[in-house]
Order: sequence, then C-alpha cells, then structure tokens
Amino acid sequence: MRDFEYYAPTRVIFGKDTHLQTGALLKAQGCHRVLIHYGGESALRSGLLKEICRNLAEAGVEYITLGGVVPNPRLSKVREGIDLCRRENVDFLLAVGGGSVIDSCKAIGYGVANPWTDVWNFFLKTETPRACLPIGVVLTIAAAGSEMSDSCVITNEDGWLKRGSSHNSLCRPKFAILNPRLTYTLPRYQTESGCVDILMHTMERYFVNSETMEITDSISESLMQTVIYNARILMKEPGNYNARAEIMWAASLSHNGLTGCGTGGGDWACHQLEHELGGAYDVAHGAGLAAIWGSWARYVYRENPERFAQFAANVFDIPGGRDFEKTALAGIQAMEDFFRSIEMPVSLSQLGLTLSEEEIHRLAFKCSFEDTRTIGVFKQLNMKDMEKIYLAAR
Amino acid sequence: MRDFEYYAPTRVIFGKDTHLQTGALLKAQGCHRVLIHYGGESALRSGLLKEICRNLAEAGVEYITLGGVVPNPRLSKVREGIDLCRRENVDFLLAVGGGSVIDSCKAIGYGVANPWTDVWNFFLKTETPRACLPIGVVLTIAAAGSEMSDSCVITNEDGWLKRGSSHNSLCRPKFAILNPRLTYTLPRYQTESGCVDILMHTMERYFVNSETMEITDSISESLMQTVIYNARILMKEPGNYNARAEIMWAASLSHNGLTGCGTGGGDWACHQLEHELGGAYDVAHGAGLAAIWGSWARYVYRENPERFAQFAANVFDIPGGRDFEKTALAGIQAMEDFFRSIEMPVSLSQLGLTLSEEEIHRLAFKCSFEDTRTIGVFKQLNMKDMEKIYLAAR
Repeated sequence: MRDFEYYAPTRVIFGKDTHLQTGALLKAQGCHRVLIHYGGESALRSGLLKEICRNLAEAGVEYITLGGVVPNPRLSKVREGIDLCRRENVDFLLAVGGGSVIDSCKAIGYGVANPWTDVWNFFLKTETPRACLPIGVVLTIAAAGSEMSDSCVITNEDGWLKRGSSHNSLCRPKFAILNPRLTYTLPRYQTESGCVDILMHTMERYFVNSETMEITDSISESLMQTVIYNARILMKEPGNYNARAEIMWAASLSHNGLTGCGTGGGDWACHQLEHELGGAYDVAHGAGLAAIWGSWARYVYRENPERFAQFAANVFDIPGGRDFEKTALAGIQAMEDFFRSIEMPVSLSQLGLTLSEEEIHRLAFKCSFEDTRTIGVFKQLNMKDMEKIYLAAR
Repeated sequence: MRDFEYYAPTRVIFGKDTHLQTGALLKAQGCHRVLIHYGGESALRSGLLKEICRNLAEAGVEYITLGGVVPNPRLSKVREGIDLCRRENVDFLLAVGGGSVIDSCKAIGYGVANPWTDVWNFFLKTETPRACLPIGVVLTIAAAGSEMSDSCVITNEDGWLKRGSSHNSLCRPKFAILNPRLTYTLPRYQTESGCVDILMHTMERYFVNSETMEITDSISESLMQTVIYNARILMKEPGNYNARAEIMWAASLSHNGLTGCGTGGGDWACHQLEHELGGAYDVAHGAGLAAIWGSWARYVYRENPERFAQFAANVFDIPGGRDFEKTALAGIQAMEDFFRSIEMPVSLSQLGLTLSEEEIHRLAFKCSFEDTRTIGVFKQLNMKDMEKIYLAAR
C-alpha cells in the first residue's frame, strides 16, 4: 500500500433541522461579515434562503448575499464574488447549495485571500494559493462531496475550460450542515445524477493499478453498495428520510479522502473526460460521468482484470471464479444496468449529445491539453486513447 | 437513525519513516517549547526517543522530556507533567507512545490550560474543560485510538479510580504520525490486546439497541473483519508491514467517531466494567475487555437478538436464518473463539484474576458509583446486573 496523509477537519452537523444552527455556528467562528452565496430559484422558492437569513440575523451575524451560481459554476461569478467581498469586507463565506455553490465559494475564498495574483492561475496550476477565506456550508444536494473535500472546479467562459484546483488544507470547509430533508424537493434527475457522482468519487480512487489497502477497499465497497441500494429507493420514494441520509453521508465520505487512504491519488480519468463535456456542453456532472464510465472501463479493464473482478464480486455479488475477464465484464455490465435502472445515460447520445468525429477530436484535444498530457493511472491515456473512449461512448 | 456530529480534525501522516517529519510538523505549528512525553524502557531501548529528539533539534524545535508513563496512566504523573509544563513554559505536547502516553498528554494539556480548577474534576465530571494545550502524536502501538479521539482515561491512585473525560474538540491531537514499523517490536500479548481494544471501540458503538445507519454498520463490519483477519496474521508474522498497517489505521478509524455516526453514543458498558478491573488490578485494557465481553454479550443479547445475528452474519459469515437467537449465540461464540485464537482471555481467571464474591461485589459497587448509576444502552445495567456479569466472567 502507499503512504498517505488524511486530513478532514470539517465539523459535520448531521440531521433534521440542523440548518437552524447556522447562525450560532457562524457566531462561534467570530466572523465580522458573512457572504451568503447561493444558486438560483430553488433556494428562494423553498424558503430556505429566507430561513437562513433570519437565523443569522437572530444570532446577530452581519451578512450580505450573492446568488446566481449555475451548475458548472462560472469564473465570471467568482470574480463578481471576489469584488463584492473586498468592497464589503467579508471575512466568512457561507455556501447555501450544492457542489457548484461550494466550489464557487472556494474560488472566491482563494481570490480574496490571495490578492497577489489572479484566481484563475490556481486552476491553470501556474500558481499555488497560500490562504483561503473560511467557508461554511448548508448542503442542499448530495453529490459533489465538496462540503468536506480539498478541491473545487470552475468553468472559464473564455474558451469554456472546466478546471479543478486542490489544496490539502486551505479550502476545506470549517463546518458542513447536512440536513437530508433539504434534499427532498430535488428533481429526480438531479438526485440520481448526484448518486452517480458519489459512486464515481469512490470508483476513481478504487480503480488504481497498484496494491491497495484492505480496509479502504472494504469501506469503499460498502459505500458503493449503500449508494446503489438507496439510489434505487429514491427513484420511488424521494421523501424517504433514511435513504436521503445514507446518500448524503456517503457523498461526504466518498470525497473527503477516506476512500483513497493507502491507494495513492486515484485515477480521475473519467472526471477529466467529463470535465470537457461539462465545460463545452454544460451537462449535469453525474450524468456525464455515467455516460462515459462504461466505455472507459471496457477500454482499460484488461490492465488488471482481477481488480474489476473484485469490484464485481464485492459490490454486485457476482460469483467470482478464475476467469477474471468474464467476471470483470459482468461487473461493468452490472454498473451500467444500475445506471439504466436509475434513468442515467450510459452513452453520449443518451446524454443528449450527438457529436461528430470532429467534435470528439476537439474534446480529446482539449482534455489532453493540446496533446501535451496523459490522464489516468489505471491505464495512462493519451489523446488518441481519449478519442477512442469518447467514440466508444457515442 | 440518530442525528450526529462528526469532527475528526487530526492530520494523519501514515507510512514508513513518517516519524522523521515530526520536527517539521512541530515547526509548522509555531510552538515555543515542546514537552516530549513517553513511557518507559521501550522508547529508549529502541532508539526511537533519541531519533525523535535529534529530529526536533535539527528542525530547531526546543524541547524537554518527561518519561515514566505506565499502562493505566496515573494522575500523579499527570500532576508532575502539569507542574513541569508551567515551570518550563511548554506550549505543545508531543506524545511518543500509545494510548497511555497520549491520554496522559491530554490530561496534562487540560491541567495546564485550565488553571482555574483541579484537573481531576474533569474526570469526576464536576467541571468542564475550556481549553487544552495542543498535542501531537508519534504512535507506537495500535490500540486505544486516542491519536484521533476526543477522550482520555486516567487512573487516580487515591482509591484506584479509573475515569474518563471527553470533549468533542479540545483534546483531539493536531497531528498523528502513524508509522506501522514502529509497532514491529511489540510483545505479542500487547499487539493482540491492542486488536481487542480496536474491535471493542467499534463494537461498543455497534451494539446499540436503536435504529442505526446502514453505511455506518457496513463500515463497522468491514473494520471488524479487517482487524480479525490481520490480528491472526500478526500471531505468526509480527513483521508483516501490511498487517501492521491495516491494524494501525483500523485503530484510528474505530475511535475517531466514524463508527458511531447515526447510531447514538454507543453502549460502553464493557469499557466501564473493564475500567474497574484496570483501576484495581492493573490488567492490560484489551485483555480485560476480552475477558468480559462474552459474559456481557450473553447477558444482554436477548434485548435484540436480531442485532447480534446481523453481527454474526456480516462479521463471521455465519449463515443467518429466522432463528436470530441461535445465530446470535453462534456469533458470540465465534468472537470468543477468535479471542482464544489470538491467545486473549475469555474469562477473569484466564486474565489471571481469581476473585471472591466479595471482591466482585466491590467491583460492581465501584462501577455503579456506589449503586447510584446504571451503565450501557443495549441493556441498561444496574449494580446487580454488573455483579452478575462479573460473576459469569469468573
């Protein structure tokens, strides 16, 4: 197994009505002025934003608000947030939303705390952030795991580049309020797309082509089984508290580092391939991952069929045997069947994209940083490989 | 499931040679003077202490040392540490050792940071600590999980009272250096006693008589299987790196709060029953727990045989059926068989204690705080119950 560092300092407050602790938690942080950052309609319509504002006011916490974060959050909104925070002397960021809002907060936090450079440089990885404004989260969708994670992903409209930035400590939220009831009203497509994202955060770390750690493997397999079981329940019972709660806690655990202990950094090829789709065509992240995964898996599994066979046996209870290839393929099939059962796409066309070979070439060209990098560790993929996977996923 | 809070902010540095990062980590903490706290012979004999001291000196970190912590760490040593830290203006505590040394550090940290009262009051729970000196850990035995936990246990020689204190945030170590190789030279009895302690930290949280969380159950079951599998390997191969590593990480995960998410606070009756043994007869904590557990389990399982049957099926692969009682008893038997297989006691006599009824009555009298409290939640136990369990364990 690999040496590792595990650092997940976010204080998680989990359960019913926990969002009503927001004001008190912020007060305890001793902040001067908070920016409440949120998305669009749903936080307003549901009354959540009003409830949070009232809660802060009652606790005597000064705040301003900035809405309008969209899925695949934009750099322009980040810049707007940075300017606003500077003008208004904001010293704490409160994300009320899901991964997009939290990621937008993280980028704003970097921008405000590092005035010596432009924030996009952290996503181009030409500079490293030295600080970040503290962040708190009231989560409204279980998916990205950004509420405990060390990373964020932003889309630059100039060229529609979707790029990530990570730092082991700076941007991890100080607290995350996880109230499963806040996710009851999500559209089914978003709920299930979130479930795929959660699975992928575990699978990216699980499918590495090196010795792993037993304890991490079995925690990861447990997490995947829990997500699969409860994602199916939520197809029929969106108001099932226990299923919502299992999924919500799985989201945080899948991406806080726990599922990567001893396994190295993870593969992340599917995420990179999806980022190009998200950047260019603005698809839902989890749905984009579902559309790509099977093609990626069939393209790479021969590097280590035994690993895929272990996955098949321990996640889907597929009887294993000596024929690792057969079991591996049955496992890939089972995951795709699961995606179908929760009405997630298993191809780009099911995702709503009809792409020409030229368009696919352009995706691979961008994903390979103009043919200058490879992605993935289970099998290292160059531009040609990426192209083949996109083509197979059509 | 229950609402919960999860907060495990300790930075874990896991792997080979990681103890050589101690100086740099302390330097980064910006401390003025460190107390290196340790046990006895083994840290000196192995050369570890010398290596750590050299490492700190090279990093330019000022330090003093205090050794002599014993298993079931004593209040007198804690008081000695508090005096020393005050005299020498120590502002950071470095534990080089296992649970006893870490717990002694935590108590010293409370004592120094709360000069307004006597430190024992925090263990009597008549006062609540408001602060704690920051603590770092170089771990030398996988067992107590104190390197990530919120609690510590100290024995007061005046009356031989062994009492715990916990606080969700104050005493959790800032960092924990986990190098599995540092545990190679442990005597087998200590290694295996540690494995029982790890299992018990998960079992105490697992055996609650209320609705739990699927994801927590399956993580707990995974942890238990990993510990059982690798504890057996270590009987024959004490220098097996992977087995040492699995056990070491299991120790931290079993007691950092993860295995209690959504299940309420846990039962802890076995720990309370063992604390009286440890306080009065100075037995190894894990061995004491092994000697008690079976008798506790047989005394309480009828409250919820289905839970014990789930344990039997998922941890020991015992085929389940409708007859929960039968499966439950088979699971208890399987755990006792496992204890025997790693040469751990399953009775007080095997632990080396031959106790009269009068002595057992005295244990129960102390454990029930002179017949004024009950312990446990799976089944609430009063003084009479405790007496019966001790008697059954003879």
